[in-house]
Amino acid sequence: MRLLVVNVNTTEAMTAEIDRAARLAASPGTEIVALTPDFGPASVEGNYESLVAGVAMCERVARYDQPYDGVVLAGYGDHGREALQEICSVPVIDITEASAMTAMLLGHRFGVVTTLDRTVPLIHDRLLVAGLTARCAGIRAADVPVLALENAPEASLDPIVEQARLLVEQDRAEVICLGCGGMAGLADRIRDELSVPVVDGVASAVAQAESLVRLGLTTSRVRTFAAPLPKHVTFPSGAPALRAGVGA
Amino acid sequence: MRLLVVNVNTTEAMTAEIDRAARLAASPGTEIVALTPDFGPASVEGNYESLVAGVAMCERVARYDQPYDGVVLAGYGDHGREALQEICSVPVIDITEASAMTAMLLGHRFGVVTTLDRTVPLIHDRLLVAGLTARCAGIRAADVPVLALENAPEASLDPIVEQARLLVEQDRAEVICLGCGGMAGLADRIRDELSVPVVDGVASAVAQAESLVRLGLTTSRVRTFAAPLPKHVTFPSGAPALRAGVGA
Amino acid sequence: MRLLVVNVNTTEAMTAEIDRAARLAASPGTEIVALTPDFGPASVEGNYESLVAGVAMCERVARYDQPYDGVVLAGYGDHGREALQEICSVPVIDITEASAMTAMLLGHRFGVVTTLDRTVPLIHDRLLVAGLTARCAGIRAADVPVLALENAPEASLDPIVEQARLLVEQDRAEVICLGCGGMAGLADRIRDELSVPVVDGVASAVAQAESLVRLGLTTSRVRTFAAPLPKHVTFPSGAPALRAGVGA
Amino acid sequence: MRLLVVNVNTTEAMTAEIDRAARLAASPGTEIVALTPDFGPASVEGNYESLVAGVAMCERVARYDQPYDGVVLAGYGDHGREALQEICSVPVIDITEASAMTAMLLGHRFGVVTTLDRTVPLIHDRLLVAGLTARCAGIRAADVPVLALENAPEASLDPIVEQARLLVEQDRAEVICLGCGGMAGLADRIRDELSVPVVDGVASAVAQAESLVRLGLTTSRVRTFAAPLPKHVTFPSGAPALRAGVGA
Amino acid sequence: MRLLVVNVNTTEAMTAEIDRAARLAASPGTEIVALTPDFGPASVEGNYESLVAGVAMCERVARYDQPYDGVVLAGYGDHGREALQEICSVPVIDITEASAMTAMLLGHRFGVVTTLDRTVPLIHDRLLVAGLTARCAGIRAADVPVLALENAPEASLDPIVEQARLLVEQDRAEVICLGCGGMAGLADRIRDELSVPVVDGVASAVAQAESLVRLGLTTSRVRTFAAPLPKHVTFPSGAPALRAGVGA
Amino acid sequence: MRLLVVNVNTTEAMTAEIDRAARLAASPGTEIVALTPDFGPASVEGNYESLVAGVAMCERVARYDQPYDGVVLAGYGDHGREALQEICSVPVIDITEASAMTAMLLGHRFGVVTTLDRTVPLIHDRLLVAGLTARCAGIRAADVPVLALENAPEASLDPIVEQARLLVEQDRAEVICLGCGGMAGLADRIRDELSVPVVDGVASAVAQAESLVRLGLTTSRVRTFAAPLPKHVTFPSGAPALRAGVGA
Repeated sequence: MRLLVVNVNTTEAMTAEIDRAARLAASPGTEIVALTPDFGPASVEGNYESLVAGVAMCERVARYDQPYDGVVLAGYGDHGREALQEICSVPVIDITEASAMTAMLLGHRFGVVTTLDRTVPLIHDRLLVAGLTARCAGIRAADVPVLALENAPEASLDPIVEQARLLVEQDRAEVICLGCGGMAGLADRIRDELSVPVVDGVASAVAQAESLVRLGLTTSRVRTFAAPLPKHVTFPSGAPALRAGVGA
Repeated sequence: MRLLVVNVNTTEAMTAEIDRAARLAASPGTEIVALTPDFGPASVEGNYESLVAGVAMCERVARYDQPYDGVVLAGYGDHGREALQEICSVPVIDITEASAMTAMLLGHRFGVVTTLDRTVPLIHDRLLVAGLTARCAGIRAADVPVLALENAPEASLDPIVEQARLLVEQDRAEVICLGCGGMAGLADRIRDELSVPVVDGVASAVAQAESLVRLGLTTSRVRTFAAPLPKHVTFPSGAPALRAGVGA
Repeated sequence: MRLLVVNVNTTEAMTAEIDRAARLAASPGTEIVALTPDFGPASVEGNYESLVAGVAMCERVARYDQPYDGVVLAGYGDHGREALQEICSVPVIDITEASAMTAMLLGHRFGVVTTLDRTVPLIHDRLLVAGLTARCAGIRAADVPVLALENAPEASLDPIVEQARLLVEQDRAEVICLGCGGMAGLADRIRDELSVPVVDGVASAVAQAESLVRLGLTTSRVRTFAAPLPKHVTFPSGAPALRAGVGA
Repeated sequence: MRLLVVNVNTTEAMTAEIDRAARLAASPGTEIVALTPDFGPASVEGNYESLVAGVAMCERVARYDQPYDGVVLAGYGDHGREALQEICSVPVIDITEASAMTAMLLGHRFGVVTTLDRTVPLIHDRLLVAGLTARCAGIRAADVPVLALENAPEASLDPIVEQARLLVEQDRAEVICLGCGGMAGLADRIRDELSVPVVDGVASAVAQAESLVRLGLTTSRVRTFAAPLPKHVTFPSGAPALRAGVGA
Repeated sequence: MRLLVVNVNTTEAMTAEIDRAARLAASPGTEIVALTPDFGPASVEGNYESLVAGVAMCERVARYDQPYDGVVLAGYGDHGREALQEICSVPVIDITEASAMTAMLLGHRFGVVTTLDRTVPLIHDRLLVAGLTARCAGIRAADVPVLALENAPEASLDPIVEQARLLVEQDRAEVICLGCGGMAGLADRIRDELSVPVVDGVASAVAQAESLVRLGLTTSRVRTFAAPLPKHVTFPSGAPALRAGVGA
Repeated sequence: MRLLVVNVNTTEAMTAEIDRAARLAASPGTEIVALTPDFGPASVEGNYESLVAGVAMCERVARYDQPYDGVVLAGYGDHGREALQEICSVPVIDITEASAMTAMLLGHRFGVVTTLDRTVPLIHDRLLVAGLTARCAGIRAADVPVLALENAPEASLDPIVEQARLLVEQDRAEVICLGCGGMAGLADRIRDELSVPVVDGVASAVAQAESLVRLGLTTSRVRTFAAPLPKHVTFPSGAPALRAGVGA
């Protein structure tokens, strides 16, 4: 099977990082195609950027012209999942939800460690809409910008581990979710220091997508995610939106 | 004061309708400027369209080059409020939340009557994120497309009134919110038939925006809605996003 | 329009303070009539006092014999709103709910700073019944008696600002509600020190009441707030209750 | 031990009915003293009446000048429990909460059948504040006025049984709570027809009060229900409030 | 009346302790029969042990061959209540739920102090299923093994009191529940030091059971707790399960 | 990898059915070992049977003496997951939770169709403890005993499809979960008739277990699911419990 894994931002180095994490998690026989959006922000650290990135991920998937079996949206706490579910006929997995569900299989409560404080409410609201807050022990930010994960991974490690520790010791988390698409490399150290399972969003989403494909399941079309009605939708350039061929 | 009221879709006739509703609700001394997005869908009836429209509303506001004091987002259940709050320095009011809050001042529970069944979950999720579901008695759809409200208002009235009646009699709503930016004209008939207050989203949002402006209050900048970090954000055309001058 | 603003206690100096706050918030053309109950406690700092004050506010409004267009109940966390909604035909706004709703338009979460620890549960329960707890970050008390706000405003300022700071920094509030009718004067200093919007209950309730009057909306009569049935109700003196002429 | 059982209204016939139900439920050695308030409404069927009755019950208890060991407030869904807890040193039990708790010991979900539709929200809010809604299957009204229970018990029986049946069959209640102080006589017939346990508020509250007294437990004084601060509280007559000797 | 009080573990010394607590709480005329399961763990401090103990308590009750009127399950946070409700025709009371309900009659919020950190989630989940979390301020563990309560009660007292203090001062509990069947002896000291009511599970459950018996109420049979269908159930020995005569 | 799939009851024919469903869902390279408990009920349709079956499933896994990589508990809404998580070192997946999570990836809300009405509350409580109720549209029973699924599958099909239809059309479910381990064969017909995805518990649990094994994740040991303390646990026969070698 072929899975598209779409980076939420336009930074190619992060796409490469996500690609690595996805390939490590994929089963033999699963082809990973990592995509970078054609437009949008260099990193997503707020509501406006998340909204634009949601559209950009949809359009990037819509422009992909080969067959594929599932899509992973690699933006933690970001917009776009519902929209892409609607325009795709194959399963669409958001890394926020995939990591939370995976964590809920592993412990009584999970915690999320993320980058900037300002993204905590986005993650909270994403989990709320997904119906996954009941066992969330907390979401803590390490005050590390997204791109610093790329540029200075060592320096950013300590504060992230520290927040994970607080989640476990103070907030009673028993599992840690890495709350950013670019944190995959940190899983080992957090696990070693805190002796708890650490769930990477991209890896868990790839596994969930594979599962759905194998089970022959895809998004329900009866109401919320029915295909868009035939309609004129334009883009900033004045050109029609790209979604005509999505999911074909 | 000057309030921008942004239509969620690109249908000018609906902008005109929204403009009328806003002017009727505005206090003397409030100037209403109704805006139509430069791109996006002709009507919003699903997740993808809502996401694109959210960006389009942001960009339309950002392109407005005169001073203004507040913004009303005239899309019921749609995306964009948080993004626009972030890029604007003036208050931003979403009609979904404004109408729900207004309704909560008037009765023990409120119900929302909307157009298509597929938009019910969008409205539900919008209220959920806004923390306004506890007193929501229900959201019911009349199976009337958005543009039919424009093109055939008489034919669309009966099923809308019927759903409102079920909200009051079966679901125990005591107030009805009109769950679509283009329903303002139906308020009188619903009120007459059901003897309950009927809250129009645009009208209540204009009133809430005026209140905030008069009280000298605007969006908090400490965390969720801090201004976006300086960052490269591009648009489909490859051009930088328009938001540079927002809220000036 | 004429709005009645009813103090929750019998301390005339606090009525004067509330009157000032209401006039500052009112639009041109709105007449504010501040009323002091004829009986009840000198300040409300507990459940029994709140219950008596709820009746006293109802009776004071009922005894007012001029026309009016709306009522603001200036007791934070106190009883009486539902009862007065029932006996009045014009809109009735409670400052607890008005301030929470206003705050929810301005930030992701709000916090309430109040006077005595023992009143925190009253405020919590009031917000709970109003369906407004989902985005409440916390309610903190400064251990300052209500009347000290009147008699020694300077000395009471520091602990209140300190609790507001904890709400913002520890509890993740992004907006502060002043949880007492007599705190209006403290808004500026809290805002200056913490850089967050500060919402005064009386001011926000006056604005909400004005909005409802302008929109021609008033309390639903279909169920919860239907007018009381004709019935014999007596008062401690043995005299019939005063409510005969309410809302005329 | 001696328990005061306070009727919520001024109708002596209902006090007598409540007295009978309380005596039937009391253990040997428990003396029941049924009290009628000195003022207030003839029956409580709304928010204003409930508020006045809450004060009236407090005052009636305060005026009682013999020793007693506990108090039962016989108003279903009504105000006054928190206030009386504060001014009494002995346990205070509200029949709404007592019946819900008792029902939760007997089945997975309970339903409440009450008199008028307009009192359903009062009961809901009372259960909400008490933290007892999670297992409430529903609250249904039979459209029977409170005093009709007294005056025409036979005619009022059928619609009450019918609503109880809907609670069991449609709403999945497994236990029925009688949602009015004057319904005690109907328990047998509902139980016989529906084969579910039926919980009377007065009976269950008497049992709960006896239990607390035997266990030597009474209301916590640390915060919410600390005794009122020494303070000037006046009544409509201008006389000081009666509560001086409460709980002696 | 005769009440069976079943210890959750096989430690006879704890059965004796539970017996003492139950007798102290029982009314004159109530006979307490304390039972020790025939099998299971020496103490329950985890999920597996709790599950086995749940079955063991059911079987011990089923094997009891004299008439009885009610059953108290003396395991805090443990399994078995629903199963025993199903196989018994008399009322069954779990000490977790009984103590939480009793505490809710005494203060705005209650806290639970228990033994080991690992049992906190069991207690939380038990309260969740019982619908009793809304007013739970917190559950704190003192890091004292269950049997240490038996073997070294003095040494275990200080950390338990300390956690109770944190519940009151930090978490805003106003009542403390003793979260272990063997803590009854500590009630006095916690009450003396913290000036809050302290609720013992066994005592409160005995009182609740007595109340139900006196009121003539027992478990509803309409759905969740209908008697098991006639069916072949075997036990590890290969022998049929013992429950044939239960509730006779 | 090798996955153990444990039937909840002792009916070998159902084990065979579960085995088939598991094999169909398994990836190449996954060995399925279906186990029947040594004791317990022939089918699980109530709380007591569920509790015994929970222990029986734990013991059957503990007695398995070959290496394995994960365990699937094939009892819908039943006990045992937490206990087995505690005594196993490999991942343990419950079919209730796995199917609900899978469904949440596919639609806005899911519904569960099950056998007997009396098992609905067990399923509800299981989802509640798992934190998975927020997007559950409803649980409906077809009034078909578990073993009838085995013995008369055709006759039992119609009422199950009918309840699934009500879930979709009335309760707004967009995905159907088959709420019984023996329903796997019905998925196609429900999907064909209702045009919604149908999730089988065993299939989705096998996929989830495979995912965890591939990702190298297993149950957290820090608190809730720490290995049981060394302790004397006996069984009805008087023999020590079997769990010594679990998870080796």
